[in-house]
Amino acid sequence: MDTIVIYDISDNALRSKVARTLLEHGLVRIQKSAFYGFMNHNNREKLRLRLDRMMEGEEGNIQLYPLCSKCFNLRESIGETYEIKEEDVTVL
Amino acid sequence: MDTIVIYDISDNALRSKVARTLLEHGLVRIQKSAFYGFMNHNNREKLRLRLDRMMEGEEGNIQLYPLCSKCFNLRESIGETYEIKEEDVTVL
Repeated sequence: MDTIVIYDISDNALRSKVARTLLEHGLVRIQKSAFYGFMNHNNREKLRLRLDRMMEGEEGNIQLYPLCSKCFNLRESIGETYEIKEEDVTVL
Repeated sequence: MDTIVIYDISDNALRSKVARTLLEHGLVRIQKSAFYGFMNHNNREKLRLRLDRMMEGEEGNIQLYPLCSKCFNLRESIGETYEIKEEDVTVL
Protein backbone atom coordinates (compact mmCIF):
# COMPACT_ATOMS: atom_id res chain seq x y z
CA MET A 1 0.00 0.00 0.00
CA ASP A 2 1.02 3.58 -0.52
CA THR A 3 2.37 4.68 2.84
CA ILE A 4 3.02 8.10 4.34
CA VAL A 5 5.38 8.38 7.30
CA ILE A 6 5.55 11.61 9.28
CA TYR A 7 7.80 12.31 12.23
CA ASP A 8 8.38 14.91 14.89
CA ILE A 9 11.80 14.43 16.47
CA SER A 10 13.76 17.29 18.00
CA ASP A 11 17.11 15.50 18.41
CA ASN A 12 19.15 16.08 15.24
CA ALA A 13 21.06 12.79 15.33
CA LEU A 14 17.96 10.68 15.97
CA ARG A 15 15.99 12.55 13.31
CA SER A 16 18.73 11.92 10.74
CA LYS A 17 18.88 8.26 11.74
CA VAL A 18 15.13 7.89 11.26
CA ALA A 19 15.27 9.67 7.88
CA ARG A 20 18.12 7.43 6.74
CA THR A 21 16.20 4.34 7.85
CA LEU A 22 13.18 5.45 5.82
CA LEU A 23 15.39 5.94 2.74
CA GLU A 24 16.91 2.50 3.27
CA HIS A 25 13.40 1.05 3.22
CA GLY A 26 12.78 2.63 -0.16
CA LEU A 27 10.76 5.65 0.88
CA VAL A 28 11.29 9.10 -0.61
CA ARG A 29 11.12 12.46 1.11
CA ILE A 30 8.02 14.49 0.27
CA GLN A 31 8.44 17.12 2.98
CA LYS A 32 11.11 17.95 5.54
CA SER A 33 9.53 15.56 8.04
CA ALA A 34 7.42 13.37 5.75
CA PHE A 35 8.24 10.40 3.53
CA TYR A 36 6.29 8.37 1.02
CA GLY A 37 6.71 4.83 -0.28
CA PHE A 38 4.82 1.84 -1.58
CA MET A 39 5.16 -0.97 0.97
CA ASN A 40 3.58 -4.36 1.43
CA HIS A 41 2.46 -5.44 4.90
CA ASN A 42 5.67 -7.35 5.69
CA ASN A 43 8.00 -4.51 4.75
CA ARG A 44 5.90 -2.01 6.65
CA GLU A 45 5.98 -4.28 9.70
CA LYS A 46 9.77 -4.63 9.46
CA LEU A 47 10.12 -0.86 9.24
CA ARG A 48 7.78 -0.33 12.18
CA LEU A 49 9.71 -2.76 14.38
CA ARG A 50 12.99 -1.08 13.46
CA LEU A 51 11.57 2.36 14.25
CA ASP A 52 10.07 1.02 17.49
CA ARG A 53 13.52 -0.10 18.66
CA MET A 54 15.10 3.15 17.50
CA MET A 55 12.63 5.26 19.51
CA GLU A 56 12.88 3.24 22.75
CA GLY A 57 13.63 5.66 25.57
CA GLU A 58 13.82 8.56 23.11
CA GLU A 59 11.60 11.60 22.73
CA GLY A 60 9.65 12.00 19.56
CA ASN A 61 6.78 10.65 17.54
CA ILE A 62 6.52 8.80 14.24
CA GLN A 63 3.24 8.02 12.50
CA LEU A 64 2.66 5.61 9.62
CA TYR A 65 -0.38 5.94 7.37
CA PRO A 66 -0.98 3.12 4.89
CA LEU A 67 -3.39 4.34 2.20
CA CYS A 68 -5.59 2.35 -0.15
CA SER A 69 -5.49 3.52 -3.77
CA LYS A 70 -8.83 5.29 -3.38
CA CYS A 71 -7.56 7.37 -0.44
CA PHE A 72 -4.21 7.96 -2.11
CA ASN A 73 -5.96 9.40 -5.16
CA LEU A 74 -7.85 11.86 -2.94
CA ARG A 75 -4.65 13.50 -1.67
CA GLU A 76 -4.08 17.14 -2.49
CA SER A 77 -0.90 19.15 -2.56
CA ILE A 78 -0.59 22.94 -2.36
CA GLY A 79 2.61 24.76 -3.26
CA GLU A 80 6.00 23.40 -4.19
CA THR A 81 7.21 20.14 -2.74
CA TYR A 82 10.30 20.00 -0.58
CA GLU A 83 13.67 20.15 -2.26
CA ILE A 84 15.59 17.23 -0.81
CA LYS A 85 18.82 18.19 0.90
CA GLU A 86 20.78 15.01 1.33
CA GLU A 87 22.94 16.51 4.08
CA ASP A 88 19.83 16.51 6.26
CA VAL A 89 19.72 12.77 5.84
CA THR A 90 23.32 11.65 5.78
CA VAL A 91 24.71 13.68 8.68
CA LEU A 92 24.64 11.86 11.99
CA MET B 1 -13.55 11.70 6.32
CA ASP B 2 -10.65 11.60 8.73
CA THR B 3 -8.11 13.99 7.28
CA ILE B 4 -4.41 14.47 7.90
CA VAL B 5 -2.80 17.76 6.90
CA ILE B 6 0.99 18.05 6.83
CA TYR B 7 2.97 21.14 5.96
CA ASP B 8 6.52 22.23 5.30
CA ILE B 9 6.79 26.02 5.53
CA SER B 10 10.00 27.77 6.52
CA ASP B 11 8.57 31.27 7.04
CA ASN B 12 7.52 31.59 10.70
CA ALA B 13 4.63 34.01 10.12
CA LEU B 14 3.14 32.02 7.25
CA ARG B 15 3.55 28.75 9.16
CA SER B 16 1.72 30.20 12.16
CA LYS B 17 -1.03 31.54 9.89
CA VAL B 18 -1.52 28.12 8.32
CA ALA B 19 -1.56 26.41 11.73
CA ARG B 20 -4.14 28.91 13.02
CA THR B 21 -6.28 28.36 9.92
CA LEU B 22 -6.22 24.59 10.50
CA LEU B 23 -7.30 25.12 14.13
CA GLU B 24 -10.11 27.42 12.97
CA HIS B 25 -11.33 24.62 10.71
CA GLY B 26 -11.55 22.28 13.68
CA LEU B 27 -8.36 20.31 13.20
CA VAL B 28 -6.06 19.40 16.08
CA ARG B 29 -2.29 19.28 16.14
CA ILE B 30 -0.85 15.75 16.16
CA GLN B 31 2.75 16.71 15.41
CA LYS B 32 4.66 19.97 15.10
CA SER B 33 3.79 20.16 11.38
CA ALA B 34 0.81 17.81 11.19
CA PHE B 35 -2.87 18.21 12.02
CA TYR B 36 -5.84 15.86 12.13
CA GLY B 37 -9.56 16.43 11.81
CA PHE B 38 -12.78 14.86 10.63
CA MET B 39 -14.02 16.86 7.63
CA ASN B 40 -16.74 16.40 5.05
CA HIS B 41 -16.02 17.11 1.41
CA ASN B 42 -17.37 20.69 1.52
CA ASN B 43 -15.38 21.73 4.56
CA ARG B 44 -12.23 20.16 3.17
CA GLU B 45 -12.76 22.03 -0.10
CA LYS B 46 -13.26 25.32 1.76
CA LEU B 47 -10.07 24.72 3.70
CA ARG B 48 -8.15 23.81 0.55
CA LEU B 49 -9.26 26.97 -1.24
CA ARG B 50 -8.29 29.10 1.75
CA LEU B 51 -4.86 27.45 1.93
CA ASP B 52 -4.46 27.80 -1.85
CA ARG B 53 -4.94 31.56 -1.57
CA MET B 54 -2.67 31.75 1.47
CA MET B 55 0.19 30.01 -0.36
CA GLU B 56 -0.04 32.05 -3.56
CA GLY B 57 3.42 33.40 -4.32
CA GLU B 58 4.78 31.89 -1.11
CA GLU B 59 7.31 29.12 -0.59
CA GLY B 60 6.18 25.95 1.09
CA ASN B 61 4.10 22.86 0.68
CA ILE B 62 0.88 21.64 2.29
CA GLN B 63 -0.58 18.18 1.72
CA LEU B 64 -4.06 16.94 2.62
CA TYR B 65 -4.79 13.25 3.02
CA PRO B 66 -8.45 12.27 3.43
CA LEU B 67 -8.60 8.73 4.87
CA CYS B 68 -11.44 6.22 4.74
CA SER B 69 -12.15 4.52 8.07
CA LYS B 70 -10.34 1.36 6.94
CA CYS B 71 -7.15 3.30 6.17
CA PHE B 72 -7.48 5.39 9.31
CA ASN B 73 -7.65 2.25 11.44
CA LEU B 74 -4.40 0.99 9.89
CA ARG B 75 -2.40 3.99 11.14
CA GLU B 76 0.38 3.36 13.61
CA SER B 77 2.07 5.69 16.05
CA ILE B 78 5.47 5.23 17.67
CA GLY B 79 6.58 7.26 20.67
CA GLU B 80 4.89 10.12 22.42
CA THR B 81 2.70 12.51 20.48
CA TYR B 82 3.56 16.18 20.25
CA GLU B 83 2.86 18.38 23.22
CA ILE B 84 0.94 21.31 21.79
CA LYS B 85 2.53 24.66 22.43
CA GLU B 86 -0.09 27.25 21.68
CA GLU B 87 2.51 30.00 21.21
CA ASP B 88 3.60 28.16 18.06
CA VAL B 89 0.10 28.68 16.75
CA THR B 90 -0.95 32.07 18.01
CA VAL B 91 2.18 34.10 17.30
CA LEU B 92 2.13 35.90 13.96
